[in-house]
Amino acid sequence: MNKEIQTIIDTIVEGNKRVIAKAITMVESEKDGYLNLLDQLHFYTGKSLRVGITGPPGAGKSTFTNHLIKLIRARRKTVGVIAVDPSSPFSGGAILGDRIRMKDVLLDDGVFIRSMAARGNLGGLARQSMDAAEILEAAGSDIIIFETVGVGQIELDIMSAVDTIVLMTVPDAGDVIQTMKAGIMEIGDIFVVNKSDLAGADRMRDDIDYMLNLRSKKDGWRPKVRLSEAIRGIGIEVVLDDIFNHISFLEDNNLLIEKRKQRLKNKIIGLINYRITEKYWDEEKERYLNSYLNNEIKNKSPYKFVDELFKDA
Amino acid sequence: MNKEIQTIIDTIVEGNKRVIAKAITMVESEKDGYLNLLDQLHFYTGKSLRVGITGPPGAGKSTFTNHLIKLIRARRKTVGVIAVDPSSPFSGGAILGDRIRMKDVLLDDGVFIRSMAARGNLGGLARQSMDAAEILEAAGSDIIIFETVGVGQIELDIMSAVDTIVLMTVPDAGDVIQTMKAGIMEIGDIFVVNKSDLAGADRMRDDIDYMLNLRSKKDGWRPKVRLSEAIRGIGIEVVLDDIFNHISFLEDNNLLIEKRKQRLKNKIIGLINYRITEKYWDEEKERYLNSYLNNEIKNKSPYKFVDELFKDA
Repeated sequence: MNKEIQTIIDTIVEGNKRVIAKAITMVESEKDGYLNLLDQLHFYTGKSLRVGITGPPGAGKSTFTNHLIKLIRARRKTVGVIAVDPSSPFSGGAILGDRIRMKDVLLDDGVFIRSMAARGNLGGLARQSMDAAEILEAAGSDIIIFETVGVGQIELDIMSAVDTIVLMTVPDAGDVIQTMKAGIMEIGDIFVVNKSDLAGADRMRDDIDYMLNLRSKKDGWRPKVRLSEAIRGIGIEVVLDDIFNHISFLEDNNLLIEKRKQRLKNKIIGLINYRITEKYWDEEKERYLNSYLNNEIKNKSPYKFVDELFKDA
Repeated sequence: MNKEIQTIIDTIVEGNKRVIAKAITMVESEKDGYLNLLDQLHFYTGKSLRVGITGPPGAGKSTFTNHLIKLIRARRKTVGVIAVDPSSPFSGGAILGDRIRMKDVLLDDGVFIRSMAARGNLGGLARQSMDAAEILEAAGSDIIIFETVGVGQIELDIMSAVDTIVLMTVPDAGDVIQTMKAGIMEIGDIFVVNKSDLAGADRMRDDIDYMLNLRSKKDGWRPKVRLSEAIRGIGIEVVLDDIFNHISFLEDNNLLIEKRKQRLKNKIIGLINYRITEKYWDEEKERYLNSYLNNEIKNKSPYKFVDELFKDA
């Protein structure tokens, strides 16, 4: 192995924030040698708990996460945060007040916060977040929190790769309930109705609870539904207990190891699919496609074109 | 060609709503013969204008779209709507009042509305929406509107496949501005601040306008920023004019044909990549992967495993 890589790895494992940040940038930009780095880091990974926190913009995810981090730290565990949310204060995309409120955790040595942005490179964002998490794992984060916004494909990809999913919403979010009905209910392990001081919070909690009674329970875990008022730090400790209880539940039922194996399998399938498509597309193939687009598209449908391509092969 | 398929195609081209709906279901569920159907329909496509309307839940996209449809109909053009938005009234996921308000357009023969839902099959949703659009094109829709929510990968995939993108937002959506800053600004051709009766609407329009001055203009089109109050039908006609003006702009600059060629190219690349990965994964490959996961994962990283796989090949 490359000596330079070994030095980087040693420094990451020691928890050097500057080097961790650089390593994540390396992975994010797919800089030469990043696969080599991940390859070596692999042997330091596999111990962190992964928690996903997702919900609509403005639900208060970052404020909630900020308090959650402090409570985790109070239990003497280290935290890594990966914010895949352009509107998150953790991404620098928020009003100054938010950032000041978060100063404590930003300065804490046991906390590493990283924002991952789309930057026109959306396809790889889910994969890059996972890779960044491996770096944080190697750096010793006991718990890694993924903060995502909304219910798009990237968010679902990320959520499918965590151990516990916290779904946040706010009262009066009529559309949120609709969205939840339409699929997102399936993935939550813990539901949090934040801004519980607003009218309709109890009602919303009851509605979610009712819907959960109708939902098919895949793994036997009955999701929790909690109220919180993140801005005042209320209702967060119980969610942290829920998180640990859910992890214990997974462990007791041999599901944690299964989940992680599946996660790894999906990751490898992704790596392989990427490689085989990359290998397929050479100049000749692209020229052939362009020639079809320029000359034959009127008499031959794209479906037939693709069909013939695979008949020849 | 299969005689049954020919009958289906003839009936779609005649605009039979029941058969159109069935054909979309066929495509959505990837039922046997759907590629054959799309293959034959291809020769009836290529004429519709495609408009994307996207924005956060609750921005009023469906109410806006409802009025837009009526205005398009008043100009004697037919409309197809594909709602890829679980919270849309068009998806049946809304309060009764919304659906009653939309009764006119739902009963109009020149309007076809279809909702596409994730239903746990998220990977293919963008592709399926495109396929559904081809059916609507063959059925003679002059304009096809894609309604999507949020800024996830699927939404961006869909938006990258339309001719004109309308980005909707509402005043006081502080987070929306952040989200917009973080990438979504790049894709909008027309920006609409809906609920313009709310405080801060003018300010928000000016903010967006200011940000657009800073944005790099890829194709030379200066995006429009408009105020609307969709619930009262205010400010919608001017957006429709913007849409047609944008299309004319694309035509005048030879960009429409380029856009469509690129769209088709991406579609074919997607079809091919799907086929090569499908071809790759047989029982033996999966067994080999499982064996690695069960036996070797501790001494060999996934990256090395994949590397070796491609060295052998």
